[in-house]
Amino acid sequence: MSVTAAGGFTATGIAAGIKESGGPDLALVVNNGPRHQAAGVFTANRVKAAPVLWSEQVLKGGRVSAVVLNSGGANACTGAPGFQDTHATAEKAAEALTATTGTEHSAGEVAVASTGLIGVRLPMDKLLPGVETAAAALSEHGGEKAALAIKTTDTVHKTAVVTSPAGWTVGGMAKGAGMLAPGLATMLVVLTTDADLTADELDTALRAATRTTFDRIDSDGAMSTNDMVLLLASGASGVRPEQAEFAEAVHAVCADLGQQLIRDAEGASKDIRIEVVGAASEDEAVTVGRTIARNNLLKCAIHGEDPNWGRVLAAIGTTDAVFEPDELDVAINGVQVCRGGAVGEDRDKVDMRFREVRITADLHAGSASAVIWSNDLTADYVHENSAYSS
Amino acid sequence: MSVTAAGGFTATGIAAGIKESGGPDLALVVNNGPRHQAAGVFTANRVKAAPVLWSEQVLKGGRVSAVVLNSGGANACTGAPGFQDTHATAEKAAEALTATTGTEHSAGEVAVASTGLIGVRLPMDKLLPGVETAAAALSEHGGEKAALAIKTTDTVHKTAVVTSPAGWTVGGMAKGAGMLAPGLATMLVVLTTDADLTADELDTALRAATRTTFDRIDSDGAMSTNDMVLLLASGASGVRPEQAEFAEAVHAVCADLGQQLIRDAEGASKDIRIEVVGAASEDEAVTVGRTIARNNLLKCAIHGEDPNWGRVLAAIGTTDAVFEPDELDVAINGVQVCRGGAVGEDRDKVDMRFREVRITADLHAGSASAVIWSNDLTADYVHENSAYSS
Repeated sequence: MSVTAAGGFTATGIAAGIKESGGPDLALVVNNGPRHQAAGVFTANRVKAAPVLWSEQVLKGGRVSAVVLNSGGANACTGAPGFQDTHATAEKAAEALTATTGTEHSAGEVAVASTGLIGVRLPMDKLLPGVETAAAALSEHGGEKAALAIKTTDTVHKTAVVTSPAGWTVGGMAKGAGMLAPGLATMLVVLTTDADLTADELDTALRAATRTTFDRIDSDGAMSTNDMVLLLASGASGVRPEQAEFAEAVHAVCADLGQQLIRDAEGASKDIRIEVVGAASEDEAVTVGRTIARNNLLKCAIHGEDPNWGRVLAAIGTTDAVFEPDELDVAINGVQVCRGGAVGEDRDKVDMRFREVRITADLHAGSASAVIWSNDLTADYVHENSAYSS
Repeated sequence: MSVTAAGGFTATGIAAGIKESGGPDLALVVNNGPRHQAAGVFTANRVKAAPVLWSEQVLKGGRVSAVVLNSGGANACTGAPGFQDTHATAEKAAEALTATTGTEHSAGEVAVASTGLIGVRLPMDKLLPGVETAAAALSEHGGEKAALAIKTTDTVHKTAVVTSPAGWTVGGMAKGAGMLAPGLATMLVVLTTDADLTADELDTALRAATRTTFDRIDSDGAMSTNDMVLLLASGASGVRPEQAEFAEAVHAVCADLGQQLIRDAEGASKDIRIEVVGAASEDEAVTVGRTIARNNLLKCAIHGEDPNWGRVLAAIGTTDAVFEPDELDVAINGVQVCRGGAVGEDRDKVDMRFREVRITADLHAGSASAVIWSNDLTADYVHENSAYSS
């Protein structure tokens, strides 16, 4: 059901000809109201794609009536002409939606998201007509099509839905495979709800959810120029939810989509759950978890089903976190292979056959903890990222 | 000529049976004086192998009469028993050398270095007899054998020599392939000279040299628990060199060995020279260079001979360095593919067929610069680091 699970939204996905493959490459999500509140979280990369710069401005107003998303090109590092392309896309969407819906749409309330190769202008001669075609194809059942159109190297499209007994729904779609890193990462996510909330309430719920979901996925440590997570509220249910219950629903949808992203990471054969406990602070737990997640040697070892805990310690040792080297404990899939910074239980006891690998590192420096998800490093990853530009 | 190019040194390499392969795995380098001054640089990893902890203490005294190096086991994360193993190795070397040379040797002046798998005790029943065998096999021509015995996944042994017209020599050997990262990295280096210098003078020259050579090699971003660079001076030439000339010679030997390490990095098919110019400070130039060097997506693209400059910008954008995104210039192999943060010359003009790939990033934020060397990321790298423990 994706972005159309919640009332008040229509969507579609079409093949506009942006991708050379001829596959679906343009999605349109429209909030038909009655409310149009919205919040967004964007990449922390200082090199931001044109659609990120544009949509950040749109979201400052706290209102979004539509989102245009394209795969097949990131429109990043394209300078002022690239920004003009994004602007033209929003103008075209507003114009087409005003014509098809009979309701006035303003470009200033149209967010734009792009994903694909950096440093190449988008084929506007295909994209703009595509926006018109999409506007004419909008449907209350178009969520799946939209989710399909934003795929790049994703092998499957990703959607999630949570419905409250109170009568409102949060749904969403995501794309992203590889390049999953902190501050989000080559990941486009659109969440929708028919609950009735202010932009500030949406922002609070969205930031809390992304901080402990998308922000703790780290597939290859590379941070994208294009990441964007949007949350749009139509108010169509007429229900104003409890903020805590709403926040929980947004978190659940983000966590679900995040897991789908990790499971579909480029070329990965293992999902690695890294739990850091006993940290002096949550920030240090996250830092240590990320450092473990980014250790190429460890990621290769996990790929080879080798419980090489020495590489976990070597990674932890590069951080500034509070810990004593001779107090570090590491467990892999429940086997305490390292105790007190030295050899623990026999590593041969570790069963590495399953896709999920659980690493627990105890710093014995406090009571804070964090979970980071990552993937193994495989020859397929190398192939996917070297065989063609992306 | 390796570590025996300089007068006053003997060395050898033998097969002690530490490696299951039965190949050479134990090297001994002895400084026969008349002087025994020494300096050392060690891994910045907070999780340090036993031989690092031991040798750091030895080097505090500024005197080293011998170095025992083994491959086939890192003796890292082995706790107090592992430290006792290192201590016993130094004691055995002092005892054997006292017996064979007729000169009193003290364990407190014997440095120990190890490389191999982390978290496994060394087979002391093989290592200690090996030390005796090595002490009996020392030769003024044993430098090559020593260099061969410290190899792990190295495909070739690495040696370098510089001789001054003033009558002194600096020679050295190195092992390391993969895991080359800042603060040195799974790299053992022993440099020797017959020049006559104080420990402080050696230290100054060594730190200056490593800072701009080994410290600027970053093959896979992973920092080892065992890295060590030692510089031993015998004074056998009787010449006290100019400090500047000596520093230059040490730098030249380190730079030569560093290049050999990069060219032999695990599974690499490309050597990537990353030059960051126009930085606000040298530190920022180094940070930006390292961040580019560690971007797995870029490393895959280079492997695929794809001049994907967008990934260079995406990497730069994750740093805190001073720059404006729309002022960044990037050249690959001399072609200015990115100008002012946007599309520059046609990327098809970039010739990527050769092993060396040169990336130049201009931050336009100052006049500082730095060069970092790295490698591409290949399926062979994944294979080497997943197919067996190391």
